[in-house]
Amino acid sequence: MNEMGMVQVYTGDGKGKTTAALGLAMRAVGKGYRVYMIQFMKGNIDYGELVSAEKLDGFTIKQMGRASFVDRKDPDPIDIRMAKEALGLGREIMEKGEHDILILDEVNCAVDWGLIEANDVVELIKAKPEHLELVLTGRYAPQEFIDLADLVTEMKEVKHPFRKGQEARDGIEL
Amino acid sequence: MNEMGMVQVYTGDGKGKTTAALGLAMRAVGKGYRVYMIQFMKGNIDYGELVSAEKLDGFTIKQMGRASFVDRKDPDPIDIRMAKEALGLGREIMEKGEHDILILDEVNCAVDWGLIEANDVVELIKAKPEHLELVLTGRYAPQEFIDLADLVTEMKEVKHPFRKGQEARDGIEL
Repeated sequence: MNEMGMVQVYTGDGKGKTTAALGLAMRAVGKGYRVYMIQFMKGNIDYGELVSAEKLDGFTIKQMGRASFVDRKDPDPIDIRMAKEALGLGREIMEKGEHDILILDEVNCAVDWGLIEANDVVELIKAKPEHLELVLTGRYAPQEFIDLADLVTEMKEVKHPFRKGQEARDGIEL
Repeated sequence: MNEMGMVQVYTGDGKGKTTAALGLAMRAVGKGYRVYMIQFMKGNIDYGELVSAEKLDGFTIKQMGRASFVDRKDPDPIDIRMAKEALGLGREIMEKGEHDILILDEVNCAVDWGLIEANDVVELIKAKPEHLELVLTGRYAPQEFIDLADLVTEMKEVKHPFRKGQEARDGIEL
């Protein structure tokens, strides 16, 4: 998409990490670029972005998780396997070279939760082809990712109604 | 879209404010909601999101600015007029009640740059119908907006290659 693709990281405890990646993708496919988003630890087929991505040429979203939440204290072997497969798919997409932007959505979380190793992601980052834009999202981005990234944004929660007990709302937060 | 729509603010010096709003919109229209985004101070018809929004039913983006940059120190009367019209359109969309989400993109900037008055936006926020989700983006969100908002996220720049002199790249930053 450009001579030199960057490594972007969206992290922090605030909202807008995945949506910023979605918006970036939406903007890029509108310009004719091809985007592949892999969603770690997500498997809810009812996500609104899947329906919209279907309508946007060049935008593929692949969910590589289960509908149920991952148990952070004791992740199921299935969740670990799926996260590993997600990373393997990322590597594959990168090697095929058919996309301009590769988004690993929630990959930071997957590392933090122990589903995959930070080192394996570091290897992927280091193997990034020059032209490719690589976007990593999720809370708790490991320092190694930040060190390797060109552009790092922290989404910081300033005010949040969930603290007041409001539930996540279908189609906005979910 | 839900019983009670929130007021969301995306602010800060980091990337991802407009794209987070775009991603939120993309997700919501995928669920069947109707979204209207008004872009203050933007008039570049080549923005990728316009092309993509065309393909997504229920998502309207209206640019209410000029292609040229606004001179912050001495804004042109045309820019002031267009920003006022943008806010008026926001009010109109709100009153018509045909949309579930109204996004005022870069409205915070428009206030900070003196194109429109914070008080006029405060009035709009206070007049928000219960069901409507209202999203305000842009650097330098005035404290009054933050006080009135339910959900505030600060996009914080942790690392940015522009500091090293790289230009904004077509289709990603633009």
